[in-house]
Amino acid sequence: MLTDNQQVKHVNWWVRKQEDIDYIEQYHHNPSYLSAVEVKLDHISLFADPKDVIKNSDIVILNTPAAYLEEALSELQPADFKDKLLVSAIKGIVPSIKLIVGEFLNKKFEVPFEDTVVVGGPCHAEEVSLEKLSYLTFASKNTANAAMVAQYFQTHYIKTVVSNDMLGVEYGAVLKNIYALACGICHGLGYGDNFQAVLISNAIREMEYFVNAIDPQKREINQSAYLGDLLVTAYSQFSRNRTFGTMIGKGYSVKSAQMEMNMVAEGYFASDCIQDIILNHQLEMPICNTVYNILYKNQPASIAVKNLLDKLT
Amino acid sequence: MLTDNQQVKHVNWWVRKQEDIDYIEQYHHNPSYLSAVEVKLDHISLFADPKDVIKNSDIVILNTPAAYLEEALSELQPADFKDKLLVSAIKGIVPSIKLIVGEFLNKKFEVPFEDTVVVGGPCHAEEVSLEKLSYLTFASKNTANAAMVAQYFQTHYIKTVVSNDMLGVEYGAVLKNIYALACGICHGLGYGDNFQAVLISNAIREMEYFVNAIDPQKREINQSAYLGDLLVTAYSQFSRNRTFGTMIGKGYSVKSAQMEMNMVAEGYFASDCIQDIILNHQLEMPICNTVYNILYKNQPASIAVKNLLDKLT
Repeated sequence: MLTDNQQVKHVNWWVRKQEDIDYIEQYHHNPSYLSAVEVKLDHISLFADPKDVIKNSDIVILNTPAAYLEEALSELQPADFKDKLLVSAIKGIVPSIKLIVGEFLNKKFEVPFEDTVVVGGPCHAEEVSLEKLSYLTFASKNTANAAMVAQYFQTHYIKTVVSNDMLGVEYGAVLKNIYALACGICHGLGYGDNFQAVLISNAIREMEYFVNAIDPQKREINQSAYLGDLLVTAYSQFSRNRTFGTMIGKGYSVKSAQMEMNMVAEGYFASDCIQDIILNHQLEMPICNTVYNILYKNQPASIAVKNLLDKLT
Repeated sequence: MLTDNQQVKHVNWWVRKQEDIDYIEQYHHNPSYLSAVEVKLDHISLFADPKDVIKNSDIVILNTPAAYLEEALSELQPADFKDKLLVSAIKGIVPSIKLIVGEFLNKKFEVPFEDTVVVGGPCHAEEVSLEKLSYLTFASKNTANAAMVAQYFQTHYIKTVVSNDMLGVEYGAVLKNIYALACGICHGLGYGDNFQAVLISNAIREMEYFVNAIDPQKREINQSAYLGDLLVTAYSQFSRNRTFGTMIGKGYSVKSAQMEMNMVAEGYFASDCIQDIILNHQLEMPICNTVYNILYKNQPASIAVKNLLDKLT
C-alpha cells in the first residue's frame, strides 16, 4: 500500500530474520506472507533490528501480532519514541498487561494518545494484496494526525476514512475476533445462517454497549470500522478466529484446536482480557461471557450456547 | 411451524392447484416446495379457494409473493376481512399500487393497522424446514395482537420477538432485497469481501435513515428483524436477489437475467417502488439509487457502482 501510494516517502521495514531479508533483496518477494506481491525495493529499506527502523523513521507503523509486541519492542525505551507518530495496525490486546495497543504504548513508552493513530478495517490482507477495493479507517484523538497518516495509504484500491474514536475502533477490532469465534462455535455446533444473522445483530449491539461504557462519546457503530470489520471477520471462511471456533464447536478441546491450527487466533487471548474488563466494569456481555466460559471454564459449547439463546433478540 | 406449535388451533390452507391438494392429501408432502417436510393433515384442512379459507379463519396469514397478492385476493371484499386478524409474512411491495402489504390491506380492504401483524426474519425457509433454530419478529401497532400471533409460532426451533414497529419492519424487509441485489451486483463485478462489508454497513445506515424518515419512532436498527434479515439475505448464496444481482454484475441484461432465473427477485420490483418514495420524500439513498439506475435506467453496472464508491464510508 505504502509504495503504491503517490506521496513522497521512504519506507523502513523491520524483517525479523536475516535470511528473509536476503530472500526479499534477491527476489523482491516475501517468502512467508502474501508471496505474490512484488516488494518495490527502490522505496524500501530492510532492517533486521527494530531499533534501527524506529531511529530512522518519523512515523512508526506497528503490525506485529499483539501477543509478540512486547518482545519485539523489548529493547526500546520511551526516549526512542519521542516526537514519533505511532500507528497501530494491530487488532489485539497485549496479554501480559491486558491493554489494547494504544493504551500499552501510552503506559509503557509514554506515547501521548494524540500521537497515536489506530488503523481499522474491514481489510483482509489477502484481498488488499489482490488490489481489491478496501476502505481503511484511521482513528486518533488528534484527527489531523489521523488524516495525515491516511494520506500515505490512499491508492487506487484503498479509500480512507478519518475518525476521532481511537479507543472505540481499537476495542471494536478486538471484540470482533471474540464474536467471530462465537460464530464459528455455533457453526460447528450445527446452527445455521438464520441464527448466525441473529447472533451478529446481537453482537454489534453488545459491542456498542461495551465501547460506550468504556469510552463514552458520540459514535455510529454501523460505520465500516465497527460493523464492517465485524462482518468481514464473522462471515469469512478464512478467519482464523471463526475457524478456531468451528473446531471448538465440533468438539475439539481448546488445546487440540490450537495445536491443529498452528496459528494465533487473537480472539482466544482477547476473550480472557475482555473478561477482566467486563468484571471490573460490571458489564452485561452475554456473548463474550459465553465464549469465555467455553474457552477458559471448560463449559461444554453446546450447553454454554443453549444458555445464551434466550438472551438474544 | 404452526403444527409443531403446541397451542390448540386448526390450520386452513389455501393451495392454488387442485392437483397439489390431491397430492398432499395422498402423500402428506408438498410436491413443489420444501418437499421433505411432512404435512400433518390431522391439524390442517386444504382449500382450493382463498375465499373459503378466509371465511373459516379468525387469523389470516398471507404468504403469497407480493407481485401476485392482488390477484390472489381479487374476489374478496373489505367485509370478508372484518374482525379478522391479518398476518403478513410477505416481504415485498404490491407493484400496481406501490404499497407495502400492511398499507395495501389498509387501503384496499380497510383492515385497521392495529389488526395487522407483520412477520420479520432472518428466516430462510430452507433452514426452518430443517428445524434449524431461527428467530421471528412479530410487529404490530397493537403489540398485544403481535404477541398473540407470536404464541402460535413458537416451537423448539422458533423463538419469537414482539415489536411495535410494523412499518419499519416491513420497509426494512423490502429494502434488504434491494441491498442484497446491490451486493450481488458488486460481487458479479469482482468486488471482494472487504468491500461487501463496507457496502452492508452503509446499507444498514441507509435503511435506518429511510424508515426514520417514513415513520419516525424510536427503533433499534440493529435488531435482528432489520440488520439480521439484511445479513442473512445479503450473505446467502441462495438468495434470489443476490443471485439476480450477480448476473447483472457479470454482464447479463436485466431481461436475460430474469429469463435465466425463472424466479421472482423481489428486489427488482422493490427498487422501482422505493425509488418513487425516495423522490416523493426527497431522500438521499445512494445505494438504492445505484440499483435503480442499473435496473431501470440502463446505466452500466460498472459505472453506476464507481459513482457510488465515494459516497460510502
